Amino acid sequence: MFQINENYLQLNQSYLFSTIATKVEKFSSSHFGADLIRLGIGDVTLPLSPAVINALHRAVDEMAAKETFRGYGPEQGYGFLREKIAEIDFRQRGIDISADEIFVSDGSKSDTGNIGDILGDDNVVAITNPVYPVYLDTYIMRIGKSDKLLLLSCNAENGFLPEIPSERVDVIYLCYPNNPTGTVMTKTELKKWVDWALENDALILYDAAYEAYVQDEDMAKSIYEIENAQQCAIEFRSYSKNAGFTGLRCSYTVVPEALKVRTQNGEQVSLHGLWNRRQSTKFNGTAYVVQRAAEAVYSSQGQLEMREMVGYYMHNAKLIRDGLIEKGWTLFGGENAPYIWLKCPGDMDSWTFFDRLLAECHIVGTPGVGFGSAGEGYFRLTAFNSREKTAEAVERIKKWEC
Amino acid sequence: MFQINENYLQLNQSYLFSTIATKVEKFSSSHFGADLIRLGIGDVTLPLSPAVINALHRAVDEMAAKETFRGYGPEQGYGFLREKIAEIDFRQRGIDISADEIFVSDGSKSDTGNIGDILGDDNVVAITNPVYPVYLDTYIMRIGKSDKLLLLSCNAENGFLPEIPSERVDVIYLCYPNNPTGTVMTKTELKKWVDWALENDALILYDAAYEAYVQDEDMAKSIYEIENAQQCAIEFRSYSKNAGFTGLRCSYTVVPEALKVRTQNGEQVSLHGLWNRRQSTKFNGTAYVVQRAAEAVYSSQGQLEMREMVGYYMHNAKLIRDGLIEKGWTLFGGENAPYIWLKCPGDMDSWTFFDRLLAECHIVGTPGVGFGSAGEGYFRLTAFNSREKTAEAVERIKKWEC
Repeated sequence: MFQINENYLQLNQSYLFSTIATKVEKFSSSHFGADLIRLGIGDVTLPLSPAVINALHRAVDEMAAKETFRGYGPEQGYGFLREKIAEIDFRQRGIDISADEIFVSDGSKSDTGNIGDILGDDNVVAITNPVYPVYLDTYIMRIGKSDKLLLLSCNAENGFLPEIPSERVDVIYLCYPNNPTGTVMTKTELKKWVDWALENDALILYDAAYEAYVQDEDMAKSIYEIENAQQCAIEFRSYSKNAGFTGLRCSYTVVPEALKVRTQNGEQVSLHGLWNRRQSTKFNGTAYVVQRAAEAVYSSQGQLEMREMVGYYMHNAKLIRDGLIEKGWTLFGGENAPYIWLKCPGDMDSWTFFDRLLAECHIVGTPGVGFGSAGEGYFRLTAFNSREKTAEAVERIKKWEC
Repeated sequence: MFQINENYLQLNQSYLFSTIATKVEKFSSSHFGADLIRLGIGDVTLPLSPAVINALHRAVDEMAAKETFRGYGPEQGYGFLREKIAEIDFRQRGIDISADEIFVSDGSKSDTGNIGDILGDDNVVAITNPVYPVYLDTYIMRIGKSDKLLLLSCNAENGFLPEIPSERVDVIYLCYPNNPTGTVMTKTELKKWVDWALENDALILYDAAYEAYVQDEDMAKSIYEIENAQQCAIEFRSYSKNAGFTGLRCSYTVVPEALKVRTQNGEQVSLHGLWNRRQSTKFNGTAYVVQRAAEAVYSSQGQLEMREMVGYYMHNAKLIRDGLIEKGWTLFGGENAPYIWLKCPGDMDSWTFFDRLLAECHIVGTPGVGFGSAGEGYFRLTAFNSREKTAEAVERIKKWEC
């Protein structure tokens, strides 16, 4: 009889957001007409901006005519987009990344999930706790539950930033601005990780999906702002949260040529070549029309619209922060990130707080414990709803006697 | 030091189509102005049809307005598309597949590559020789070169159809209409495979990306036309070759609920649940606008346009077949498939024929040996170029003294 990958049986049967959806559905069906406000899942609400929409229409028209139709594109992405990324996201910020080092894809979830394909099974892998569930689940899918998986605890004492591990770690996932805690690392802090990785021949998988929310000058938008990071880090970037592409699907991953590793018999291998082979074999490129939409984000109008969109959500984040601080709650995040991570008042656990916030305020959020045991007693709110709904949610919480 | 997946080092360094591209580029640069006709890579040339284009424009407009904007969609695909697929591709053909059993994706290359994620490492896996390179390469990426990989030789004697293996096989990839040979299986032949799989508790991974090209009544368009195939087969379908979506990227995979397997400790597990977990964790759904485009393929206008598109390419295939038969060459395929698989005349090997066809006729094709050792001495031509170019290519070959 054929066999399955039984590591899958070690996963939690239900994904966090499915559990939430079920609870919300149950509540809604017994509270017909309740005006629910969703500050749970990290999905955007503003429509795509005019520059992006125009680019999409133009690209669709190209696909309608024989002379301009495009079939299979390069698996790595079209040059027109990769060049723009290299120029605007990197070179203009003084970072030497070339178009060839960029791999355009359909989403950071795919890429942070698939990156394990090119890594060995014996690596000691570290993730933070709490963490974006994809890093954990894809590790378990590939390796199973293992003592080679290390959880770096993040808590109020360390400001929800992990400490450099004292034991051996080969691969670490870092996500800043962080999902779910909204925390950020200063360049000084990030440099410690880069130096540690270089000293210990470790690989940093750096998820920078929320870089557009970085406002402070002393925070890095890319790990490659740190000297020599190209020798130890892969960076994941996305158009989901800066340009509203959650339903359009476009992201990119940077695998620098300088990132080399020795094989077990001492041969030097470039990770760039491995990822290129992975993507050429198991992926057929992102839709042409979507790549033209991403290109439009780099036009001068597109850049303005992107800043406006991010500004809108950051204003929401400020509303939430100000409201909850006024209420005397303890908060993290929300200043360089679209997530507010709050300590549940009155020592409530995460799911009790979830249930009460839903039942008493008709607000949906995400229980911190859903992101890992160290998230127990915490709760995540997102800034991605509309201004009106966000303001209304804050008012409800302010009036709430809990 | 962190480790890589060293199986990757066992792969051929260069992908077949990259080698061809390099040769063609070299030829073009030394033969400026040569009128090259490309019958190599299986990419379509007709633009997207009006029903698809209209649906794309409408969906783009929806993304521009707050009220109709769509962010994250279901990872499995939107209900509006899955329902259409279940109804038109299956139920109307008398096959009981439900919308829940369908997973919409960005391409069959992704899905046939990723399906290995949910399978165990110890399976004996069979592929045909010659074969679509993705099945072979993704096996090597996951397992490395192994005596658990079995190649089923296809040749002129067996009409390029594999024979049922006499040794143990747990998983087999079948692709009909076949890429690269253009051969098809009758329902009677396919039933032998289904019965064999059911008797031997084997899994069939059935790639039906070219089903739209099936013309004969006694050929199956879906493996589920064969009784009980839902208990032993996963089917991969694509919009690339029937509706010209190679640059738009949409496909789907059917994992029937009836497809169960026992784990090593005897627990019964549904593959549907495993693939659902894989897709929810490592994929974020296909672009909304692309799913609306795929939906339009099922409108009455879309169905007409699809048949016209397939008819156009099949007419090309007939031109090639008729021309080469007139020349006295031995051929396979081209009657229920867009590929013509020819025996290189004069016992030429595949690459010699490639070089001479390029140099003397200025035509690009694909050497059969690029698909596996059993393809040596054979050559693939595709029907996907324009009518004019295809006719011109046939004329050149007819006049060619080789």
